[in-house]
Amino acid sequence: MENENSTGIVERQQFTFAHDAPMQLDSGETLGPITLAYETYGRLDAARANAILICHALSGDAHAAGLTPDGKIGWWDDCIGPGKAFDTDKYFVVCSNVIGGCQGSTGPSSINPQTGKPYALGFPVITIADIVRAQRHLIDHLGIEKLLAVVGGSMGGMQALQWTVSYPDRVRAALPLATTARHSPMLIAFSEVGRQAIYADPNWRKGEYYDNGARPNTGLALARMIGHITYLSEASMHHKFGRRLEAREHFGYDFGTDFAVESYLHYKGNRFTERFDANSYLYITKAMDYFDLANGNGSLAHAFEKCASLMYLVVSFTSDWLYPPYHSKEMVSALTAIGADVTYCNLQSTWGHDAFLLEVETMTRLISDFLDRVVAQHGIGSR
Amino acid sequence: MENENSTGIVERQQFTFAHDAPMQLDSGETLGPITLAYETYGRLDAARANAILICHALSGDAHAAGLTPDGKIGWWDDCIGPGKAFDTDKYFVVCSNVIGGCQGSTGPSSINPQTGKPYALGFPVITIADIVRAQRHLIDHLGIEKLLAVVGGSMGGMQALQWTVSYPDRVRAALPLATTARHSPMLIAFSEVGRQAIYADPNWRKGEYYDNGARPNTGLALARMIGHITYLSEASMHHKFGRRLEAREHFGYDFGTDFAVESYLHYKGNRFTERFDANSYLYITKAMDYFDLANGNGSLAHAFEKCASLMYLVVSFTSDWLYPPYHSKEMVSALTAIGADVTYCNLQSTWGHDAFLLEVETMTRLISDFLDRVVAQHGIGSR
Repeated sequence: MENENSTGIVERQQFTFAHDAPMQLDSGETLGPITLAYETYGRLDAARANAILICHALSGDAHAAGLTPDGKIGWWDDCIGPGKAFDTDKYFVVCSNVIGGCQGSTGPSSINPQTGKPYALGFPVITIADIVRAQRHLIDHLGIEKLLAVVGGSMGGMQALQWTVSYPDRVRAALPLATTARHSPMLIAFSEVGRQAIYADPNWRKGEYYDNGARPNTGLALARMIGHITYLSEASMHHKFGRRLEAREHFGYDFGTDFAVESYLHYKGNRFTERFDANSYLYITKAMDYFDLANGNGSLAHAFEKCASLMYLVVSFTSDWLYPPYHSKEMVSALTAIGADVTYCNLQSTWGHDAFLLEVETMTRLISDFLDRVVAQHGIGSR
Repeated sequence: MENENSTGIVERQQFTFAHDAPMQLDSGETLGPITLAYETYGRLDAARANAILICHALSGDAHAAGLTPDGKIGWWDDCIGPGKAFDTDKYFVVCSNVIGGCQGSTGPSSINPQTGKPYALGFPVITIADIVRAQRHLIDHLGIEKLLAVVGGSMGGMQALQWTVSYPDRVRAALPLATTARHSPMLIAFSEVGRQAIYADPNWRKGEYYDNGARPNTGLALARMIGHITYLSEASMHHKFGRRLEAREHFGYDFGTDFAVESYLHYKGNRFTERFDANSYLYITKAMDYFDLANGNGSLAHAFEKCASLMYLVVSFTSDWLYPPYHSKEMVSALTAIGADVTYCNLQSTWGHDAFLLEVETMTRLISDFLDRVVAQHGIGSR
């Protein structure tokens, strides 16, 4: 299965920390021990200066590139690999599953060592800053003093921004893509209806479903269907589905599936339940809703005040109505005000929010040029 | 409670037809007898030439203006009354609840005379053309040969368009507002997740909940919450809620209600269950999804071919992402192509889809001028 453009078969690794001293969270609670699942692609150079941290979005995981031993391709494989935007011939790329997640990192489905049972809703509510705090332990563990760049789209972009604010001395550049510096009321609203769909599933049982045979898959699938609508655009839906019927020549005049777009949503919703935990969906959406770099008081420029020496590549997409371009523009204004080195591109795309996963060609040029500039600026020799 | 700008207290009326010969539906099924609940405001002139039919949107009903005997104000009272956009000193205004509805017209919660029990899912699947077909019987009953105008926003606009296509000889003008000539895949997608929320409620019981104590209110509330997000805009949500907390000074770090926008959605969702029937929600959204004036083949201009002598006022709103302005522009192109008299306004508004209920001042000018022109064109004397 390997070819020259692939990172090949990758094995998931795990790192556990905070055994003795649990990690302090924004809520005042603590969490420990904490395991992070992660993958790496490419090689760390001798100066340990070529590391790029990839942060995943709501439904992502540590498997960003290459193939799992059982053949599953990484969620951003188009952008990570030899000669790609994040060129693994040049860079050492790390991606870890967030805390609160369900793909190998500690989350609500993990065993609570205090009780010997899954945390369920006993898991503390976390924030984007907590997610980043845990990632910093992994970066320490990998012996990386300073990341060349932190990157992510959507919730991944929030983490990238948070990294620069929480640890400005540990990162040279950030690439927040299709994201925002504060979760908007519309984003909160969509999060909340997704959560309500899960709460409404009788199998959710206030989160205590792990010992039960039945899982709240109906609610989780519904939450995912709602999400999928928001990741597309009106134009991309016309392009993908239009009013095409699915497996019917005429309207059924019943409540079966008439339209291709309905069939797509059902499929995506159901598939999601095979790999995702409903409680993780609750925790991660809550972390996103809480995200506001300015902490509700004070300006964004104030939030970025220690980031003046950093470099940023901010990218938004014209048809992304979930994270509209003006959110990126606000961020760019604040970064410009504090004197950071900011490049901003509002890319023309009809793909909606999903564009950050799909506009590979344009992004490859943009990102590789930007990373070259970061390397040049800091006099880092590529291997 | 009466004042000079109000139509005062109005009583709901009912009209029943199709006792002997049931009405033929698009599906091939039949329905009868059929009751329509309706209200009227103003007086029909001697020539019976000043009648305007108002068509309601998904969650609306026949109570468009004035006050019910128990003090409930009509959903479009800002636009219907003496001196308002639809001036009841000049016009005789009629509004009826759609078939499939639950506010006095025959729908799934009505008693099926064949069984003596509520229809539930035994009610036939209806279309916008069926809704209009039933309305025509009411207009016949009221002795109105030709409507001065048919008007509606959102699903009401679909009915207005359908009227002109189904009965071009029975109407002089149409005012489709914030609507489309064919339901888009994004609209279908939002309809379907709303329906899925209802199906997922264990109290729905495949629609057989009328004899049961418990109704599928959780599912219906969730469907309504999803709908409410789509009726607003990103900008109006910022304006109304921002990231304001509700009844909390700090984040709760739990799964309670943190944000004002969440509280708003919960409230709107719960209130809706007090007045709406979940099965009606299914039938009406399905009718909307099926709506395509061009019937999936043939052009819009072809659909409008018998409408050349009609007058249209088409209105869209810049921030309406659910029924984006280009849908109206397509309709206007088709109407222009067939030589109809079309006025089109894309109104600047931040209120999203809800704008057709809120931009009263601008719309009042537009609508009353347009109606004056329709009257003048047809030499109809106002009383």
